[in-house]
Amino acid sequence: MTESHAIQASDLLELTAGILHKNGLPEPDARIVADSLVDADLRGVSSHGVLRMETYLQRLNNRVMNPTPELKTVSETPATAVLDGDNGFGQVVSQRAVDILLAKTNDTPLAAVSVRNSNHFGAAAYWAAQLAEHDLIGITVSNVEPLMPAPGGAEARIGNNPLSVVVPSLTHRPIVVDMATSVVPLGKILNAKSKGEAIPEGWGVDSNGQPTTVPDEVINGGSLFPVGGPKGYGLAIIVEVLSALLSGGEFGTDIHSMYQELESPNRISHFFMAIKVSAFLDPQIFKASVDRYINQIKSSALAPGSDAIHMPGEIELRAKDKNTHDGISLPASVTEGLMALARQAGVSEDLINNLPAA
Amino acid sequence: MTESHAIQASDLLELTAGILHKNGLPEPDARIVADSLVDADLRGVSSHGVLRMETYLQRLNNRVMNPTPELKTVSETPATAVLDGDNGFGQVVSQRAVDILLAKTNDTPLAAVSVRNSNHFGAAAYWAAQLAEHDLIGITVSNVEPLMPAPGGAEARIGNNPLSVVVPSLTHRPIVVDMATSVVPLGKILNAKSKGEAIPEGWGVDSNGQPTTVPDEVINGGSLFPVGGPKGYGLAIIVEVLSALLSGGEFGTDIHSMYQELESPNRISHFFMAIKVSAFLDPQIFKASVDRYINQIKSSALAPGSDAIHMPGEIELRAKDKNTHDGISLPASVTEGLMALARQAGVSEDLINNLPAA
Repeated sequence: MTESHAIQASDLLELTAGILHKNGLPEPDARIVADSLVDADLRGVSSHGVLRMETYLQRLNNRVMNPTPELKTVSETPATAVLDGDNGFGQVVSQRAVDILLAKTNDTPLAAVSVRNSNHFGAAAYWAAQLAEHDLIGITVSNVEPLMPAPGGAEARIGNNPLSVVVPSLTHRPIVVDMATSVVPLGKILNAKSKGEAIPEGWGVDSNGQPTTVPDEVINGGSLFPVGGPKGYGLAIIVEVLSALLSGGEFGTDIHSMYQELESPNRISHFFMAIKVSAFLDPQIFKASVDRYINQIKSSALAPGSDAIHMPGEIELRAKDKNTHDGISLPASVTEGLMALARQAGVSEDLINNLPAA
Repeated sequence: MTESHAIQASDLLELTAGILHKNGLPEPDARIVADSLVDADLRGVSSHGVLRMETYLQRLNNRVMNPTPELKTVSETPATAVLDGDNGFGQVVSQRAVDILLAKTNDTPLAAVSVRNSNHFGAAAYWAAQLAEHDLIGITVSNVEPLMPAPGGAEARIGNNPLSVVVPSLTHRPIVVDMATSVVPLGKILNAKSKGEAIPEGWGVDSNGQPTTVPDEVINGGSLFPVGGPKGYGLAIIVEVLSALLSGGEFGTDIHSMYQELESPNRISHFFMAIKVSAFLDPQIFKASVDRYINQIKSSALAPGSDAIHMPGEIELRAKDKNTHDGISLPASVTEGLMALARQAGVSEDLINNLPAA
């Protein structure tokens, strides 16, 4: 993919929000979705960036996503809530969940919101990071459609359910763990296919559950392998339990593919939790310890061929600093796709003209 | 290793508790420690069973573990506590933490106890499982001494910090996730060494941080590799934060090795959390969903060479059923070691005679 010139994050945000608004989302909701996508592009996590807009709009046009959901708190205690997303954008539902969490942490040191009937919420870390700004340890997980077999199984039964935990620090960047529970995401296998390359053994299995190095055998009826075998399998199951089973949502094989079943609602679930540091000890002392721990880790001698030790999420946050300043470089295909969506939606040409020439 | 005849769990418990009591632990505490070890042996997790007694007693005799700790709640809210273990047995400290958690869940749907200044607590799942008996989702984690490098680093900086989550079900066994955050535990590498076998690439690195297949190069100054590279690295860091940093305990390189530094206190930390299912939805509905999810997973076609799909923890719980009935088969070396400790401690010959002849 060739890269076109850079676009400023604020311009990309206006354009993306504009497209969503013209497609029926209330303006504040359109901005929530756009901000999550642009933040991923800023952090260099382009797989969760504006690239997703095409699928979102297809699903919206197929009326399997609701542009104006009525979010409903189904049950609630001072520390917990179950939220029904009414099939809205995952980001719109998740922002509500995070806002509910933040309000609850005024009165209680631990709070959790389990969310059902939602859609793709972008990068999990985007939500956990919002919590960490308030001296909370933020936890976010989501189920997705089955993409991995159980160890010993031949068929996809478990989502490669992502999980994120974000920890605030004092002078360093926050620690941002954000991982899918498969060895690699499907995107890496699609990427190898497009380059005509074999994949390493261990990334996926074919439709018989047999390990394979042929990308197509994973993509067509095969599945992704859980990271660490039984370990990723176990973690993915816990994510499913916290999100889908605890919220009374759909789970497992009842979840349709976001990409391959464009005519069916996705109905995925999320789970958000906040741990208030001050309930345990002075947040300044805690954050100073986080700094000291980071320094310990970074003080290690380097392995051959390595030029630095990075904390989880550090590379992405450094990219965000750089791209906030320099602008975001999008592949030409993404720029062109976005331009087409913008024209279709009737977004003002002023906004479209901010896109760099492909 | 040759296996001797089986011993009944209740007899092994009495003997183990007897040895600990004679070594200065109050009888209730001795039984808590013994029960956690015997439970691991029942579940076939012998690495966390009575095999550990030798190290425990060495540490006790070296006075780097406290047989009669004064456990102290350092800070507390209705939903949280920080507990100082006063360098007691990890099991004694952890049972107190679980009891505090259970009491708190009478009044609050989410509760967490972070524990500092403790020692090895046996298998993490033992504690999370106690919570799951009360319609709680139980979470247990612990830090340990540095055993893994950061990706790109040559030196051990991060513990292969274990984590366990246990989820109750209706008619199936509970789902028991219990994992270290390294690809394999050190025991597997010691095992390969004792058999004169090479280890697969990816299990560990040598003292320069270079991947190796020679067990000795991992054991002598090398380190274990985190499961999934950055993923296990990230998870291990989160465990350290929740246990050691949130409790104000020692962390990272300040933690001494349990086995190699027998003259230094271990001072590890734990973290326990309970999520009350009823705060989110009717526990009967939840547990029925867990059952349905398990059935979905088990209904998959099998991979070639596989004869069953197991839920996390299922193999161990099946072993427990079997061994509860048939008795526990200990390797002769463990039986002999226990016999020597029992004689040294002056435990009654009646109890010693329950050990099968080696």
